[in-house]
Amino acid sequence: MTIRRLQPEARLCGATVHGNTVYLAGQVADDASQDAEGQTADILRQIDALLAEAGTDKSKLLSASVFIVDIGTFAELNAVWEAWIDPANPPCRTTIETKLAAPKYAIEIAVIAAL
Amino acid sequence: MTIRRLQPEARLCGATVHGNTVYLAGQVADDASQDAEGQTADILRQIDALLAEAGTDKSKLLSASVFIVDIGTFAELNAVWEAWIDPANPPCRTTIETKLAAPKYAIEIAVIAAL
Amino acid sequence: MTIRRLQPEARLCGATVHGNTVYLAGQVADDASQDAEGQTADILRQIDALLAEAGTDKSKLLSASVFIVDIGTFAELNAVWEAWIDPANPPCRTTIETKLAAPKYAIEIAVIAAL
Repeated sequence: MTIRRLQPEARLCGATVHGNTVYLAGQVADDASQDAEGQTADILRQIDALLAEAGTDKSKLLSASVFIVDIGTFAELNAVWEAWIDPANPPCRTTIETKLAAPKYAIEIAVIAAL
Repeated sequence: MTIRRLQPEARLCGATVHGNTVYLAGQVADDASQDAEGQTADILRQIDALLAEAGTDKSKLLSASVFIVDIGTFAELNAVWEAWIDPANPPCRTTIETKLAAPKYAIEIAVIAAL
Repeated sequence: MTIRRLQPEARLCGATVHGNTVYLAGQVADDASQDAEGQTADILRQIDALLAEAGTDKSKLLSASVFIVDIGTFAELNAVWEAWIDPANPPCRTTIETKLAAPKYAIEIAVIAAL
């Protein structure tokens, strides 16, 4: 079973496609000057783009891992998230409060999807 | 390959079944007034129920992600965990100390299982 | 579809093989007296050994979850990581800063690979 790797870099790639399963790297905001709401929207745009490149979309999400730096911004995160997901096809999700790779990041989201 | 979603809600579902793989949402205690030991037992009951609804059981666990708020309660968590898992079929596991979606939660556990 | 479990113990196993997918337990350094760089190399040796026992290798990594206690050691972690991975086959990766099961550990890494 072949493995397809999207957007490979020296340290990691953006997504791997193995059989019918797509794993995405944890995404952080391209523009980290935004607040939690803006960063979430930024991240979800990147996830949409990676899913499209893999040949799938958010209606086929299987699982999401959400990392939030300040649980006080949980409502903002969830508002953007709930407006984004396909309401007929919500993925399972795990959310924890943690620190990220740099203080400028408020949110990181990693997903697994089906092709 | 179809995707089956158990207990869908606005934000997430309880589990997704894709081919022969079952992904569960991170589970926290229904009764978060309990201590770490009680919350762990509560979570594992919910995992049993979701696995049953998906058509599988704990003997087919592949991987578990355990999030513990106070590593000082690691022994209590492990005692309940080790009494619960099928001793002939332990899953691989990753445990980190982190904060969760609300201060009342002591433990969160997410698993991946086979059908 | 059968499940193969490597290095089973009372609490967890080292890896599970399900179909063409291999899940590894989160690995911490065997010798935790080392600094972050040494612990990362130690962990990657253990991952190599588990992947070999499962019948695969690092060129087939799909996804990595990296847990780092002090993001101040991110450069050391990345240097060892980038020297280790197959440059033609980088996996997707998620890195968060968190605490681990004991203060002596600086890094924990869990991976999913293809057979």
